[in-house]
Amino acid sequence: MKDIKNDQILKNFIVLEGLDGCGTTTQTKLLYDRMQKEKIPCASTWEPTGGSIGLFIRKILEKKQSVEPFTLALLFSADRNEHIYGRNGIAEQTQTGKKVICDRYLFSSLAYQSMFMDFETVAQLNSFYPLPEYLFYIDLKPEECQKRMANRSSVELFEKLELQKKTYANYQKALEMFRDSEMKTVILDGRLSIQEIHSQIWEILGR
Amino acid sequence: MKDIKNDQILKNFIVLEGLDGCGTTTQTKLLYDRMQKEKIPCASTWEPTGGSIGLFIRKILEKKQSVEPFTLALLFSADRNEHIYGRNGIAEQTQTGKKVICDRYLFSSLAYQSMFMDFETVAQLNSFYPLPEYLFYIDLKPEECQKRMANRSSVELFEKLELQKKTYANYQKALEMFRDSEMKTVILDGRLSIQEIHSQIWEILGR
Repeated sequence: MKDIKNDQILKNFIVLEGLDGCGTTTQTKLLYDRMQKEKIPCASTWEPTGGSIGLFIRKILEKKQSVEPFTLALLFSADRNEHIYGRNGIAEQTQTGKKVICDRYLFSSLAYQSMFMDFETVAQLNSFYPLPEYLFYIDLKPEECQKRMANRSSVELFEKLELQKKTYANYQKALEMFRDSEMKTVILDGRLSIQEIHSQIWEILGR
Repeated sequence: MKDIKNDQILKNFIVLEGLDGCGTTTQTKLLYDRMQKEKIPCASTWEPTGGSIGLFIRKILEKKQSVEPFTLALLFSADRNEHIYGRNGIAEQTQTGKKVICDRYLFSSLAYQSMFMDFETVAQLNSFYPLPEYLFYIDLKPEECQKRMANRSSVELFEKLELQKKTYANYQKALEMFRDSEMKTVILDGRLSIQEIHSQIWEILGR
């Protein structure tokens, strides 16, 4: 078994998290572009990954394929294990001093997979992975995220809002779970402008 | 989380296990044919399955794709979860009174995956699945299995033998692990003829 566990920190590993619609993908891109511009060795990545397992997960999320919730949780963990420990994975890349910025990580599993199954089981499946050096959590209330997400009928909107509320609560639980870890957790106000949030992230990383 | 755990028995579920070369596939087929002939409602199945995850696992086993050992263990568990709890899965089929005969199950994970990682971790990943009503373990020493498997160079043979010895030891550990369960474990002498082994299985099931 890997001896790196949740209580270990992967230096140079930066994760962005938050509800759908809060802007993690936008911020990941902005941060990556900024680092590139500043000639800081960096890479950007995301979960589920573009690998075989990640692509299969995407099919499930797009409802092209259906699996049991526990199966999906196992697949996310499998995809993550490759992402971290596989060839040219995050562990390998960060070790060379390269900053790796990741759009979503195990906190997303804790927030999303545990909607349909026991939180502790999801945590257990993800207890084998290291924590990032920085976790930026973009805090935006479910109602606000809803407003930013278009093209939904009112019923879908309601369903979606209920799910987002659960996810939001699970994110709080996940943040609480790692409160005493040495990971630097930064909670950002998601109501701020894209540029303001980016500036805050940049400022914190530069300290 | 599923409330069916390792300590629960799935009635009508019959598993065959043993080292590569010991004959589980042959015996699964013979048993299935016999039940069919006797008009007993039955199905035969195997792991890794023919589903999306199982097919991906086969690619890995055939070395067409490479993943970390823990990733493989997670994938086997994901495939198994679908196999048991998915639509038209083993749980659903056995509940209707149908006998489901399965060539390899979680005991194979315990025996094979734990060669490259911690046994306890593999056990933990598989603690969510029920035990079969019957486990038929075809006991054949690694050296005997080797003899039955053709087309290997002497170096490959040696390597393979070392692995089979470890697998054999892990099978013993797995059988020991469930010794006090209510699963009916039958250890068959793999040196007997195909027909003799089949007759023993049939006789035991008929009791």
